[in-house]
Amino acid sequence: MSDIDFAQLTQYSKQFTGLTGELEAVLMGLAPEMKPHLPGITDSFYNVLQGIPKTQRFLDGRIDALKQTHIRWLEQVFSGPYDTDYVKAMYHVGDVHVKVELPVEFMAGAMTLVSVRLNELLGEILVGDPSRLAKATAAVNSVLGFTLMVMQQSYESSRLAEELEKFLKITGMSRILFDNLASAYKY
Amino acid sequence: MSDIDFAQLTQYSKQFTGLTGELEAVLMGLAPEMKPHLPGITDSFYNVLQGIPKTQRFLDGRIDALKQTHIRWLEQVFSGPYDTDYVKAMYHVGDVHVKVELPVEFMAGAMTLVSVRLNELLGEILVGDPSRLAKATAAVNSVLGFTLMVMQQSYESSRLAEELEKFLKITGMSRILFDNLASAYKY
Repeated sequence: MSDIDFAQLTQYSKQFTGLTGELEAVLMGLAPEMKPHLPGITDSFYNVLQGIPKTQRFLDGRIDALKQTHIRWLEQVFSGPYDTDYVKAMYHVGDVHVKVELPVEFMAGAMTLVSVRLNELLGEILVGDPSRLAKATAAVNSVLGFTLMVMQQSYESSRLAEELEKFLKITGMSRILFDNLASAYKY
Repeated sequence: MSDIDFAQLTQYSKQFTGLTGELEAVLMGLAPEMKPHLPGITDSFYNVLQGIPKTQRFLDGRIDALKQTHIRWLEQVFSGPYDTDYVKAMYHVGDVHVKVELPVEFMAGAMTLVSVRLNELLGEILVGDPSRLAKATAAVNSVLGFTLMVMQQSYESSRLAEELEKFLKITGMSRILFDNLASAYKY
């Protein structure tokens, strides 16, 4: 993780997901209206997950702790800053997801679920202000996609590193021998 | 790909991303208003990508063909059906993305960009009907997340299969020897 250029990763991921300074301001402006509803979003999110058999082993006995972490993250989504520290933290989450053997599709699935719930909530809160509603939904989807994009990059690099370790264990090959073979290999 | 249970994958991915029959009906109901604007969404999407250095080698000389495929897919997003055939096609897209060596984060990044553009467009079209706007943005984000979730599952399994091929080539080990070692390995 130490050789990652987080400033560059932040800039690249923002450009890709359309997270502009304008949308960041929209998110922070939503904080007072959204914060009272965030625990309800988290509850609804985990209610859906609890109905999916494949998620059970990640949830059993951990729901309360997971919910607390989830609410803290949702509060960050509406408070910012969306800076390199945020990106470092989300990059770390991708690594952790590999260590706990979370299936890759959980990340996109979960982020979509949060996005749909937040969109529905915004629809209720901003029903009288449709132009603000449109900006708000764009901003929420942008920041969630930004977060997902960062997490998935560390997830993949950790997953591939783990795969190499598995290969070395199965074959009984040393890392040094493998690295020497790899550097001598002509593609 | 032949041993995938696509009916099960469809049901699982819909449950995870909240894509209900109600939201599918919302999407199909939006088709007449959205279709005339979809080529503009595709143009705007590729304009952003063209500003990102890392995407260049995937775009050069291919923009027109890519745009046509992209518009056809966007039309499907608003016409359905969101069935096992759609899931099979999107699963295949994940495989293709590995074959063309597309970085993993492009999928979440690109899907977010499309989502933000569609949200902005919905905000313009439905400015006079905020409760329909809220349902529409939820439906759009749900179907895009559903699609992403399916794509990423095939992307990962293809990527890991490719990684094993690479290890075997580098070490000169046969697939049969590796499979025998793997089945004898005590974790």
